[in-house]
Amino acid sequence: MADLVGNLLVAQSGGPTCVINSSLAGVIKEAGKHEVIEEIYGGANGILGILNEELIDINDERSKTIEGLRSTPAAALGTCRYKVDFKKKPEKAAKDMDRLFEVFQAHNIRYFFYIGGNDSQDTSHKIHEEAVKRAYDIRVIGVPKTIDNDLPHTDNCPGYGSVIKYNATTVMEVGIDVASMATDDGSCCIIEAMGRSAGWIAAGTVLAKRGVPANPPHIILLPEFPFEEEKFLAKVKETVDAYKYCIVVVGEGIKYPNGEEVGADKARLDSFGHPVLAGAAEKLKQIVQGKLNTKTRTVLLGYAQRAAEHCASLTDANNAFACGEAAVRAAVEGQSGLMVKIVREAQSNGSVKWSTGLQPLADIANVEHFIPREWVSEDGFLPNEKFVEYARPLIEGEVKVPMEAGLPKYTTLDQNRVAKTLPPRA
Amino acid sequence: MADLVGNLLVAQSGGPTCVINSSLAGVIKEAGKHEVIEEIYGGANGILGILNEELIDINDERSKTIEGLRSTPAAALGTCRYKVDFKKKPEKAAKDMDRLFEVFQAHNIRYFFYIGGNDSQDTSHKIHEEAVKRAYDIRVIGVPKTIDNDLPHTDNCPGYGSVIKYNATTVMEVGIDVASMATDDGSCCIIEAMGRSAGWIAAGTVLAKRGVPANPPHIILLPEFPFEEEKFLAKVKETVDAYKYCIVVVGEGIKYPNGEEVGADKARLDSFGHPVLAGAAEKLKQIVQGKLNTKTRTVLLGYAQRAAEHCASLTDANNAFACGEAAVRAAVEGQSGLMVKIVREAQSNGSVKWSTGLQPLADIANVEHFIPREWVSEDGFLPNEKFVEYARPLIEGEVKVPMEAGLPKYTTLDQNRVAKTLPPRA
Repeated sequence: MADLVGNLLVAQSGGPTCVINSSLAGVIKEAGKHEVIEEIYGGANGILGILNEELIDINDERSKTIEGLRSTPAAALGTCRYKVDFKKKPEKAAKDMDRLFEVFQAHNIRYFFYIGGNDSQDTSHKIHEEAVKRAYDIRVIGVPKTIDNDLPHTDNCPGYGSVIKYNATTVMEVGIDVASMATDDGSCCIIEAMGRSAGWIAAGTVLAKRGVPANPPHIILLPEFPFEEEKFLAKVKETVDAYKYCIVVVGEGIKYPNGEEVGADKARLDSFGHPVLAGAAEKLKQIVQGKLNTKTRTVLLGYAQRAAEHCASLTDANNAFACGEAAVRAAVEGQSGLMVKIVREAQSNGSVKWSTGLQPLADIANVEHFIPREWVSEDGFLPNEKFVEYARPLIEGEVKVPMEAGLPKYTTLDQNRVAKTLPPRA
Repeated sequence: MADLVGNLLVAQSGGPTCVINSSLAGVIKEAGKHEVIEEIYGGANGILGILNEELIDINDERSKTIEGLRSTPAAALGTCRYKVDFKKKPEKAAKDMDRLFEVFQAHNIRYFFYIGGNDSQDTSHKIHEEAVKRAYDIRVIGVPKTIDNDLPHTDNCPGYGSVIKYNATTVMEVGIDVASMATDDGSCCIIEAMGRSAGWIAAGTVLAKRGVPANPPHIILLPEFPFEEEKFLAKVKETVDAYKYCIVVVGEGIKYPNGEEVGADKARLDSFGHPVLAGAAEKLKQIVQGKLNTKTRTVLLGYAQRAAEHCASLTDANNAFACGEAAVRAAVEGQSGLMVKIVREAQSNGSVKWSTGLQPLADIANVEHFIPREWVSEDGFLPNEKFVEYARPLIEGEVKVPMEAGLPKYTTLDQNRVAKTLPPRA
């Protein structure tokens, strides 16, 4: 394979995580080792910024800043939810593709790395195919990222280990708080976790049990299982009777057997006439208080859970960094159209050896990976020891965040823009 | 003052905090140094457990466990919301008092320490007065505790520094997350903090700004100021126009100018016919999305904020511990009817030297301490540099929590019960 000399473009996409910047740091650090890579650019706000020729010059950033990215949450380059949608908007997508390659050409981009989830891997795949079609010499490698942990073929997705470490910690802390207040009246606390269709995030809080059945969480409601109110209430009652309190974790996307979201309140419409999404935890609280008359409080972690760098998993951050490095190595070696994946190798001493592999993007795009049914208890209320065996190694180790005056010290890029050479996007 | 020889009883009351166990550890460790103190007992679930003669034998606990309390959230002895209410239920209160002194007598309790907020200081005060009246020789000292920071005379309340450290960290993290996703469409995130009548907790998140006006939080809604929708929406719009996003922190108890809670939804009634408390953040989200059409998300930290030991303030934990120690020292020296208070002494180098003092319980009970008006900006939307100067030292330093397999390792007491000698409470 002949050396491909040119510039590198890396971008971040979709919802941020605690470790999406670790992957970025991995790409940048590895890129610095290869002479074939001339300039290192970042796309501002993902593909959206690239379409607008908004490129960030990373060459000027100090190495201390790059190292700081390894303990900084959110997307340092900015991110977007923009989708190049060939299925629903083929004309617009084709126009976007033309523009992307204009930008690539104008800035001699020969290496492209897109750090993201399902949609982003799909975009990377399309760009790779398009490059082949156009005979434009570029190497495209996808870097996995999503707290949802729903990408196939990779053992886990960077971002997932950190979100479940923080959420499990929170469940432990809320659990002993509620337990210490528990009197004969009984009480319930419902913690809502992200995850609209796959329950990986909610499931991960089972680690807070640390193998002790009496420990919280007592019930985990996964979006994969239809929500049955009577069964749920019986389980809450049984738990409160046994322990005087009950901690429930609910994946935000749980649905009634008829497919309707539990969090949607059909009785109230917003100013556009859409049902108000009050949230699953809020709705469950009303159900528990109304039907069992048990005092109930809620916790809605929302964005806090994916941004909680102060409680991030070192294993997760290291894997994310390794994915960034591996992407660059693969590209320099001549590969394209692949996504880096994380590979687990169980050791005889019970620990895990992590490495990376490569998977064709064609195998990834738009395939959603769900929790195996046999990893969840028969009644569907708790992931079992198979799940725990899978998830436990992902939360090991703590990212050391530098502190200043009692608060984390996070890094920002200077975000110096590369001079535009093209007319504005039409 | 003659030596008073006998047993010690310590109990925890009200909503737990990250450092209420630090105060407990302070009491226990200091008590071990004084020969006049024979046995060390804990009241299970505060005054409620004492009334039921549910005493925990702390003498058997290992010193490692006691040390572990300094990094364990929630109330290790259990807590309660039980109030000895002389005003509203004088007969029941008098009966409770009789029973309390029966228990004290039965177990030769000569030192009583109650760790709690306003109501608990009131209870301690009543017990002290009653002891004088009954000529029962006991020394009663209150130990301050409340995340609400609304006790008078003390510089701050143990628990407060930790809650604002965690909340400010969360605002920083959510802030860079939302900022990194911000595109021209604009977005808003509303974070709800505890605090029903005093806005100390919400106000503390201003530390996340670290002096930079563009940094989040951009708006803090304090319960002390009536909520004016138009003024609020104008401020959100101004912020989104300037930065493409807006982070709002709201104290849960904010009210409309007519005194009605913003979080109460009069349009929906629960099964008892009471208005559903959907929460202030949820309501504000509907207002912002409905009126400005700006995508808005919420975070409701709930109990997580007061239990987040993994992000607790070392200054706060140390002050809490010192309060426990000081309470025992004062009692052994012959004092009673006082609450320990925290005293701040600003040093010339900008740091703070902390010590403790004593204040008559009569000055404390049922007095609520609010944020001075001159510590908040004229428009009421942000605490100013006077507040920052006050709050900043409270979050300094990090409590080191031992970790095990990626999760915090918290301590529990064995909770061995002292044999009962009395007939059950009538």
